Amino acid sequence: MDFKNKSIISIRDMKRDEIDFIIKSAEILQDNWKNYKDYLKDRILGTLFFEPSTRTRISFETAMKRLGGMVVGFSAPEGSSLAKGENLIDTVRVIENYCDAIVLRHPLEGAARLAANYVKIPVINAGTGAEEHPTQALLDLYTIFKEKGGIDGLNIALLGDLKYGRTVHSLTYALSNYKVKLTLVSPPLMKIREEIIEDLKNKRIKITETSSLDEVINEIDVLYVTRIQRERFADATEYERVKGSYRIELKTLKNAKKDLIIMHPLPRLEEISQEVDYTNHAVYFKQVKYGLIVRMAILLLIFGFELK
Amino acid sequence: MDFKNKSIISIRDMKRDEIDFIIKSAEILQDNWKNYKDYLKDRILGTLFFEPSTRTRISFETAMKRLGGMVVGFSAPEGSSLAKGENLIDTVRVIENYCDAIVLRHPLEGAARLAANYVKIPVINAGTGAEEHPTQALLDLYTIFKEKGGIDGLNIALLGDLKYGRTVHSLTYALSNYKVKLTLVSPPLMKIREEIIEDLKNKRIKITETSSLDEVINEIDVLYVTRIQRERFADATEYERVKGSYRIELKTLKNAKKDLIIMHPLPRLEEISQEVDYTNHAVYFKQVKYGLIVRMAILLLIFGFELK
Amino acid sequence: MDFKNKSIISIRDMKRDEIDFIIKSAEILQDNWKNYKDYLKDRILGTLFFEPSTRTRISFETAMKRLGGMVVGFSAPEGSSLAKGENLIDTVRVIENYCDAIVLRHPLEGAARLAANYVKIPVINAGTGAEEHPTQALLDLYTIFKEKGGIDGLNIALLGDLKYGRTVHSLTYALSNYKVKLTLVSPPLMKIREEIIEDLKNKRIKITETSSLDEVINEIDVLYVTRIQRERFADATEYERVKGSYRIELKTLKNAKKDLIIMHPLPRLEEISQEVDYTNHAVYFKQVKYGLIVRMAILLLIFGFELK
Repeated sequence: MDFKNKSIISIRDMKRDEIDFIIKSAEILQDNWKNYKDYLKDRILGTLFFEPSTRTRISFETAMKRLGGMVVGFSAPEGSSLAKGENLIDTVRVIENYCDAIVLRHPLEGAARLAANYVKIPVINAGTGAEEHPTQALLDLYTIFKEKGGIDGLNIALLGDLKYGRTVHSLTYALSNYKVKLTLVSPPLMKIREEIIEDLKNKRIKITETSSLDEVINEIDVLYVTRIQRERFADATEYERVKGSYRIELKTLKNAKKDLIIMHPLPRLEEISQEVDYTNHAVYFKQVKYGLIVRMAILLLIFGFELK
Repeated sequence: MDFKNKSIISIRDMKRDEIDFIIKSAEILQDNWKNYKDYLKDRILGTLFFEPSTRTRISFETAMKRLGGMVVGFSAPEGSSLAKGENLIDTVRVIENYCDAIVLRHPLEGAARLAANYVKIPVINAGTGAEEHPTQALLDLYTIFKEKGGIDGLNIALLGDLKYGRTVHSLTYALSNYKVKLTLVSPPLMKIREEIIEDLKNKRIKITETSSLDEVINEIDVLYVTRIQRERFADATEYERVKGSYRIELKTLKNAKKDLIIMHPLPRLEEISQEVDYTNHAVYFKQVKYGLIVRMAILLLIFGFELK
Repeated sequence: MDFKNKSIISIRDMKRDEIDFIIKSAEILQDNWKNYKDYLKDRILGTLFFEPSTRTRISFETAMKRLGGMVVGFSAPEGSSLAKGENLIDTVRVIENYCDAIVLRHPLEGAARLAANYVKIPVINAGTGAEEHPTQALLDLYTIFKEKGGIDGLNIALLGDLKYGRTVHSLTYALSNYKVKLTLVSPPLMKIREEIIEDLKNKRIKITETSSLDEVINEIDVLYVTRIQRERFADATEYERVKGSYRIELKTLKNAKKDLIIMHPLPRLEEISQEVDYTNHAVYFKQVKYGLIVRMAILLLIFGFELK
């Protein structure tokens, strides 16, 4: 498996053996990352955040610096020549002269693929448009792998806004490479789109759809919680009602499996009560740590180092 | 004295021997800091500035980098997930996965202490709310110590807005550990609050209060100047009048002691005339240099290095 | 030639032998820059961008980091103490305590020279006001030198807004040190100012002025394209018409010399059609790479290293 100089654009581009290879590489790195602390010495990562995302940016920057590398870039479009109307292609063609790989966050779908087509250095998609955020999907898989000892055979519930959430789409496609049962829990208005269901069925994923977490809580191994966004509701009262009925509290979990893990891409608002943080179910802060390892692994791989 | 892994939250938490220890550590570092330039290699400092403060941020970043360390973070809340409504506790619990210590600036009183309660790494308060800015107080003390050869026995005047100024509160508490005479010079409207006077008297600090610098200029060893803020005045004419009468010019200093030092936390507006910059009294730009050394010392101490 | 500790404020301050020395130094660095990757270890560059300029900032930061140095600073005035009304002199007198050289971008003419007068460390002007951007001029000269094998004897056309463009002014002065023919192509409204023409004639530069690129395209060796800014026109229709008639397309170039090079300071909007990017004429992205080398050379020189 060779990721050297390859771009990471979409989880849909990746086959199971490629995903497994990244997971395995991350696992090798997990306890030994300090041995790799000079591997990216003299390399420069360009972090181009055309929309702000503090946690994703700092995660990549930390990954690069922990491996001895350097970072240049911008954290928000204010101050970029985008304000002068420059197009994305010119921007990345300029920036590629300054660095050895690009991490790109952009509000438009397809921006990372477009960029990758025009530069000679690898591009890592750090979130584009409403659908793609491949390193988030990879870190989610890695979290499940590490916390549950594997992915095949699990019953994984996705909860919240399954219609619009970027994380959910990427993760669903990623999981479709595994033999999992998917339990989709959402308000009727926010059900996952029909074409995604079709795709998943074609891949022989077993799917349960429900609007009630209570009905399924005792059967699931992984509960992946996402935010229900206020913008989707015309009516504030309706929003409050729906939001409240999908909020995870201690009492929500009373019939849960003992080893259920609860994940969240963060930032979390009120979807998960803080009292849940102190249970063994909560792994959302550990997810952050796993994410850092996954990104370190990806950087090492695209710069041509194999982890074994 | 062991500062390893300790947070620096408030000058009020610190006893005289702890302050003296930091001052002594800074003094050891002063002329030898280049010998420590790799001590923090592989360490990462997270600089979380929820409100902008260019000079404090760059001071900490420079301190960290001069010691071989790395920095990740943000310089303003734009672009942070705070914009998405995330609470401070979640933010620091995420960020602690990326770094080995946190420097926190936040508009709310108590933010640094709250953060420190939720993370396992040390937190340094770089200014929170209207009252706390402990490293500023420590660098002020260190400046006095270096410029006057000691702190005990000095007559130290604080001039300007003593009611609202953050720097003044921290410094007053810091000085209350020493045998100093405090001369408080302010417009009647901006006198220091009565409860602080009481605190100081309980610590047997001798206090003189006046609204006229002229009356006391010949007796003081240190003149600490702060800004009088326009926002405190309903009336622009009144503001101009008051501001003018507390402005330090060459003529203000004609009866000053020859070795009077003038300090200012900066930025300075019109409180000190530029002609004063070229006198031997002015140490406010040297204060910046001392501040860098104090912050280097603090970083070394919390990372477990003793300076001797 | 000794640039150690010297500020780079204006191309007008530089004599031909100084410019040639920088060009020659850059050329030595071009293929050997990796040999210099630790030369600026332990040095800190302060990048003070009082107005945003992503590409110039990242170019300097990359130059510094590639040579082993560190960077502190700010990329936009938001968040700087300028917001509190501090004057430039105080700001640079504070910042000089944190770094070994300053790169300054500022909206006001003369800001870099003023700063340099007040600090003991070298200041590099990264664009001030409407006239000065000396490292841009130097990288433009270096690009011509590398792409054409020299500068003397060339017919160099400047196209676009010659009245207000900052790049054009700096470049014109830089070129006036060489035996070039200048062809000035602009809409009548945007002709270069008469006093610059006088200056150039005094230096015995041959000048052709025209509003038609077609008339001169077959004679020129270098075509330097700049933007025509919408702000200069009261009337949007007039702007569109003028802009269109100075746009470089493949058909514009049918009578061009085979080895004509086309330059642009970037960002480019519609002044050059993207179809031109794939011709051998286009060197504007290579200019970026040359710029990085020139800035690396300048940093090495002002820190006291000679390139030979």
